[in-house]
Amino acid sequence: MPELRKDPIHGRWVIISTERSRRPSDFAPEERRPIGGFCPLCEGNEDRTPPEIIALRDNGTLPNSPGWSLRVVPNKFPALRIEGELNREGDGIYDKMNGIGAHEVVIETPSHYETLTALPLKAIENVLWAYRSRIIDLRRDERLRYVLVFKNYGVAAGASLEHSHSQIIALPIVPTRVREEIEGAKTYFLYKDRCVFCDIIRQELSQRSRVITENNSFVSIAPFASRFPFETWILPKTHHPSFEHAEPSSYALAAQTLSDTLQRLNQVLDDPPYNYIIHTSSSPELDQEHYHWHFEVMPKLTKVAGFEWGTGFYINPTPPEEAAEYLREAK
Amino acid sequence: MPELRKDPIHGRWVIISTERSRRPSDFAPEERRPIGGFCPLCEGNEDRTPPEIIALRDNGTLPNSPGWSLRVVPNKFPALRIEGELNREGDGIYDKMNGIGAHEVVIETPSHYETLTALPLKAIENVLWAYRSRIIDLRRDERLRYVLVFKNYGVAAGASLEHSHSQIIALPIVPTRVREEIEGAKTYFLYKDRCVFCDIIRQELSQRSRVITENNSFVSIAPFASRFPFETWILPKTHHPSFEHAEPSSYALAAQTLSDTLQRLNQVLDDPPYNYIIHTSSSPELDQEHYHWHFEVMPKLTKVAGFEWGTGFYINPTPPEEAAEYLREAK
Repeated sequence: MPELRKDPIHGRWVIISTERSRRPSDFAPEERRPIGGFCPLCEGNEDRTPPEIIALRDNGTLPNSPGWSLRVVPNKFPALRIEGELNREGDGIYDKMNGIGAHEVVIETPSHYETLTALPLKAIENVLWAYRSRIIDLRRDERLRYVLVFKNYGVAAGASLEHSHSQIIALPIVPTRVREEIEGAKTYFLYKDRCVFCDIIRQELSQRSRVITENNSFVSIAPFASRFPFETWILPKTHHPSFEHAEPSSYALAAQTLSDTLQRLNQVLDDPPYNYIIHTSSSPELDQEHYHWHFEVMPKLTKVAGFEWGTGFYINPTPPEEAAEYLREAK
Repeated sequence: MPELRKDPIHGRWVIISTERSRRPSDFAPEERRPIGGFCPLCEGNEDRTPPEIIALRDNGTLPNSPGWSLRVVPNKFPALRIEGELNREGDGIYDKMNGIGAHEVVIETPSHYETLTALPLKAIENVLWAYRSRIIDLRRDERLRYVLVFKNYGVAAGASLEHSHSQIIALPIVPTRVREEIEGAKTYFLYKDRCVFCDIIRQELSQRSRVITENNSFVSIAPFASRFPFETWILPKTHHPSFEHAEPSSYALAAQTLSDTLQRLNQVLDDPPYNYIIHTSSSPELDQEHYHWHFEVMPKLTKVAGFEWGTGFYINPTPPEEAAEYLREAK
């Protein structure tokens, strides 16, 4: 059983993942661990994943058989497990709980060599609808306090399977980074009576120097204090705290902006490894006024090293205004 | 001039480092950027670094000439610059200041192929004395609020030069991660009237399962909530808030524990890339009772990916008790 442990100094939680337990010899440098070979996510190999939770299927096809365009399955090596009661316990000065949660894989296409960036808009929209549906379902479980959607693309960004997929992890705790973001936005709101994200959007749309692309409902920007070269945020122009309760009509436009942004990154940086995450409210009723859901896209171009670990500061060698200019000009 | 920028939501600062400005084509994957070739840190190439700040030299040798065993020089491509007044300004909702600070390189040996792990204890002790001397000197500058010592070893851990070195960055702001650690320790002290680090040491020395090595003054442990496989902290057994004001006699014993720990990591993980940092008090008078200086050593074996960026949680596939057992048994 995986275990959640809390650092007594920082209050930071970690997942000790016994399911994925690794011995020293498992940490060979990556060049010695090529991806490739048999792919459990490909069409035809449905019996090599745990049974599907939801899928988009052709009429008349059976669950866990070919004929799908998107599947969501439990992760075969989950970081957290859904079964059991949440037990919190102490061990001297330390605090821990058993690793209750969910870990799912969204298989974005049946084809091994299609990337999300190259998928038709409708297929990307379907991926977003799948995220929405899974978040809503997982939030019904009262043990779970936050659901994170994320994607790792490329070995350097932490992907261990080549086949295009994203992941969903539901946690029994609102994680630090989300809590800090929500608290930061709340502090700003209490001071200004305005949403900080709405203020960012207003300033960016007026200054234009960090705007990458936009449509009627979404804008993609290089954030003012970008941690990483070519970091990009995609924000809904109209205030809304939660991704999963957004207007149904907005997913098509979100897919369009995401696709456009990924294509620009792909062109300027030559198929870079990247991570993206969706940040949505942990409690839409409480966060209604001050929180604003968004995507954060982080190309993996530099190494996080001692300075970053020691300080929480980041050194970014590419000013976001320059990154935005490259990305705006990409065709 | 580099610029410090603050994220208006999180209050997180980043350094936009124009000195190291990188265009899209500069981000080639690392296998295409081999290290090697001419080394500015080698003995005989003293004229290829900025003039030395301090050095340990043979009698009769001149500054910036051969005959040294350790040199500290300004970084040729500094993330921050020491010249100028600190100017804080706003830009609409954003806050920034010019990138005032110091960025120095500690060249740990004149020989290109010696690693810190393989150096004699006396040489490692000299490195620690150099850190101490530079921190004390930099803290005399009233514009600077924190000095971080860190080491990146190996390409995967962010080292861009092969020659054994560590770095020192002095910042005009106490960084978030340091502030959180000090605040967390203070909260614990207010509640318990004990230092949280002292409590950790007591529990670890009694339970033993996460102890790696120790001597009379220092203990090396796999922390209970390790973020990374084989993460190791080295702590002075006696309470002391600041590295740079530690007992003069303690540096030899710190060097011994650091060397022993690095050798064990080297043996178990086959020369792994790693980062280490020194966390010392930002204000020894104020932090006297609740803060406790230490090293954090982080082998770079896994990738930080979307889940970590989105949550601040870490998934660690190696329980620290197992890591400690491997390291304890290493000879």
